[in-house]
Amino acid sequence: MKKRVVITNDDGVYSIGLKLLRDSVLELSEAHIIAPETPKSSTGLGLTLHKPLRVMRLKLWGSEPIIAVSGTPSDIIHISIHLLNGKPDLVLSGVNVGDNTSLQVILSSGTVGAAMQAALLGIPSIAFSADVKSPDEFSKREYKKRISAVVKAISSYVLEKGIPKGYDLISVNFPSFIGRKTEVKITKPARIRFAQYTERRVDPQGNPYFWIYGKPTYPENGTDAYVVLVEKNISITPLSLNLTPCSAPKDEVESLRSEAERALSEGS
Amino acid sequence: MKKRVVITNDDGVYSIGLKLLRDSVLELSEAHIIAPETPKSSTGLGLTLHKPLRVMRLKLWGSEPIIAVSGTPSDIIHISIHLLNGKPDLVLSGVNVGDNTSLQVILSSGTVGAAMQAALLGIPSIAFSADVKSPDEFSKREYKKRISAVVKAISSYVLEKGIPKGYDLISVNFPSFIGRKTEVKITKPARIRFAQYTERRVDPQGNPYFWIYGKPTYPENGTDAYVVLVEKNISITPLSLNLTPCSAPKDEVESLRSEAERALSEGS
Repeated sequence: MKKRVVITNDDGVYSIGLKLLRDSVLELSEAHIIAPETPKSSTGLGLTLHKPLRVMRLKLWGSEPIIAVSGTPSDIIHISIHLLNGKPDLVLSGVNVGDNTSLQVILSSGTVGAAMQAALLGIPSIAFSADVKSPDEFSKREYKKRISAVVKAISSYVLEKGIPKGYDLISVNFPSFIGRKTEVKITKPARIRFAQYTERRVDPQGNPYFWIYGKPTYPENGTDAYVVLVEKNISITPLSLNLTPCSAPKDEVESLRSEAERALSEGS
Repeated sequence: MKKRVVITNDDGVYSIGLKLLRDSVLELSEAHIIAPETPKSSTGLGLTLHKPLRVMRLKLWGSEPIIAVSGTPSDIIHISIHLLNGKPDLVLSGVNVGDNTSLQVILSSGTVGAAMQAALLGIPSIAFSADVKSPDEFSKREYKKRISAVVKAISSYVLEKGIPKGYDLISVNFPSFIGRKTEVKITKPARIRFAQYTERRVDPQGNPYFWIYGKPTYPENGTDAYVVLVEKNISITPLSLNLTPCSAPKDEVESLRSEAERALSEGS
């Protein structure tokens, strides 16, 4: 039986990155594009629990309809299990317009968020992102061809063997140019990619409003951001949803706990 | 100089959980409530980058104005640094109506998301959540008093000594009842708290719409969810933003990488 792949993103149904992923895996599997009807960048693992979702069939590229959902990338993981009448064999998310490197970006990215949401449900998942400013870049013949080759190889590996042992999902970031000398490296996430700023402005009616924005910082050597943005190589970042450090002293945590317990008993 | 604490949540400015946190730390610090103008549950670390934010001063409880922001809890971390003209000494998020236990919930919670966003910027932060259905529960005298004692003790510890070494932030979950026998335990997050479902309905005009929702699952022994929901104890979960496993074999990741590199060179 043909395996089933769900393809989503956070840039919305009109991003050509979805088609790039579908074209890359068509020989391997059924490919279902189910994506947000409008851009949902920086929605992390956000879910829509306070209002219902709408689902719409569209024909955009080629003969296969694609499905637009009025929710977040993470919503779509749940909706897709419903629409497919069971879990898919693989979720591919992207190709995102803009890299998703560093913990700061990974944790708020809707593209990586969808892959994490899938991983929480035990579905193998891979997020793909590229250091480009516009989806038009995905139409450049050589760039598209090389991204497609890597997407196909990694998807094929995961469809056959699963996510590498000890990890929950994979995030892949492509540099702005891929040529003969481009290497593929395994990386860990940088911590920070942007310094955060807030700018206050005044609208024509005299009322203030605020933009939050980030300015890129120079990435630490050897991290995902360094490999993609400085070296211009392809980064494969296997991620684990653990949030527990590998080694941390127990004494400080224990004294925090005992102070809380003392306060509780004194207050009783 | 008095330390500065920013208090936020994902339930919005009208949740009495904000006042509970402020009242708990007033003896320790300046306390600035800066919270979303409307509920922003399940927004994770989501940021609002595609539209500007509005900021509004309100008087709700007592004489100190509180600040409502038209964005997410994570937006508010950035806005608060602007409004305070520098980083606060501590961010407290909550007290959330509903527990935030398990990785599944932690990663999509706006309350914990705000604390994670603060941690990424190097600001000590603590998320507080309670297994209650309504903010009215926070008005019950004994319950409020006990939560307040614990919030004060933990905040005081962190203001003085920082987040325990090796961790990035702390998430505290209160059970639905706190009495003389309630214990305080250090926990690790469960993986999953809800089994996810999607329900299809049809609106009065005959068009389908979908609700996604979760049904609680029985939590694994010893996890945050078990301690709070089954044992009815208080859980302190120190979290680390690492997303990298402590030990994972390198061979599978390496063969994935080499297949991607081979595909790239064959495609060139």
